[in-house]
Amino acid sequence: MRPLEQTPLSAVRRHPERGSYDRALAYAILDEALVCHLGYVHDGAPVVIPTAFVRVGDEVIVHGAQGGRALRSLAAGGAACCTVTLVDGLVLARSAMHHSMNYRSVVAFGVARAVTDLDEKRTALRALIEKTAPGRSARARPPSDDELRATAVLAIPLAEASVKVRSGGPLDRDEDLSWPCDAGVVPLALVRGEMLPTG
Amino acid sequence: MRPLEQTPLSAVRRHPERGSYDRALAYAILDEALVCHLGYVHDGAPVVIPTAFVRVGDEVIVHGAQGGRALRSLAAGGAACCTVTLVDGLVLARSAMHHSMNYRSVVAFGVARAVTDLDEKRTALRALIEKTAPGRSARARPPSDDELRATAVLAIPLAEASVKVRSGGPLDRDEDLSWPCDAGVVPLALVRGEMLPTG
Repeated sequence: MRPLEQTPLSAVRRHPERGSYDRALAYAILDEALVCHLGYVHDGAPVVIPTAFVRVGDEVIVHGAQGGRALRSLAAGGAACCTVTLVDGLVLARSAMHHSMNYRSVVAFGVARAVTDLDEKRTALRALIEKTAPGRSARARPPSDDELRATAVLAIPLAEASVKVRSGGPLDRDEDLSWPCDAGVVPLALVRGEMLPTG
Repeated sequence: MRPLEQTPLSAVRRHPERGSYDRALAYAILDEALVCHLGYVHDGAPVVIPTAFVRVGDEVIVHGAQGGRALRSLAAGGAACCTVTLVDGLVLARSAMHHSMNYRSVVAFGVARAVTDLDEKRTALRALIEKTAPGRSARARPPSDDELRATAVLAIPLAEASVKVRSGGPLDRDEDLSWPCDAGVVPLALVRGEMLPTG
C-alpha cells in the first residue's frame, strides 16, 4: 500500500517520533472509530463538526441532509480536514508536566468529492451501517431512491494525511523517578452495551 | 447563568430541536469529556487537531509546547473552533435512513487568549490534572517556572457557542414499524480500567 502523503500541512511536527504515514495503520484507526471531526472554513472562520463516517477504499465517507452548511461548503470545493481520534489511556506521570494521554489519531486534508450516483450512495451508506452493526444492512429497510436523493454524501480523499500514536507509560525524567507519587496508565476504551430494544 | 450566544456561526441549523444554548448543560459536557477537537485556519486551509483540555470558569484551556503551529496561530489572534463530543449510543432503526447516533456535543467559536502569567498557567494546568485524576495534583511533582514558561497555554472563551444533544430511540416512520428488523439503542460509554502501574 502506498504511504500517505507527507506535506507541509500533513507532516507531524510536534513529537515526530509519534508520527506515521503508514496507510494500513491509518485504515485500522479509521475502521475502529465511529465519529470524525470535520473541519471547514466558513467566512474565514474554522468550523469543526462531529459526524459519523465510514472508510470506503481510500476515501472517508460522510453524509447529511442536502442543504446543510458543512456539506454544501465542502461539496462546493472548500478545503476539508477530517480528524479521527481514539483515546486509549490516561498517562499519569510523577511530575505534573509529563502527564499525557495515549491515543491514535488520523488527520486528513483534501477537497471532498460529492457522491451523486445513487448506486454509489447506496453502497457507501450500506458500508456505514455495516461498520456500526455488521450484518444489519441486509435486515434494515433499504433506502429508497428519494431518500438517497435527499441525502448529501461526500468522499474525502485519504492522501495528504498522517497518523499520530502515543502508547506506553509515562516518561518521567530520571530525577523525578523517586518522587513519592504513583505513576502509570489508566486504560480507556469505548465500550458497547447490550442493545436496548425499542417498541 | 447567562446563556451561550446564538450567532449565525453558532446557531444550530440542522435539527434545531436538538440544539441548546444552556450554559450549565455545555459545562457538564465539557467537564465529562477528555479531548476536544481544536480547529484553526492555516494558509486558508482548515486544520483540526485533538488535544486534552479543561474548562476553567467560562473558558476552555488547552496547552502545548511553545512554538507549535496550532497554539502559535491561535495565540496570534487566529479564529478558533473548539468542539467536544461525547458519543452515547448507536441508534439502530428499522429503516437504513433513520439510523443515527446519540451524542452530546459543544461547539465554541472565538479568539483565544494567551495565558502568560505563571500563576494562572499553574492553576490551569493543575485543573487539567485534577479533572483527569482528582486529588493527583497534590501528589505529583509540581511544574517548575521553567517548565511553565516552556508551555503555551491558551484560553478559548465560552461565549459564541452551542450545544447539540440527541438521545432516545430510533425515529422510524409509521410505515416502517412493521418491517421485520430489530431496533433499539446500543449504549456506548468511555470506560476507565484499573491503573496499570509503571516501574
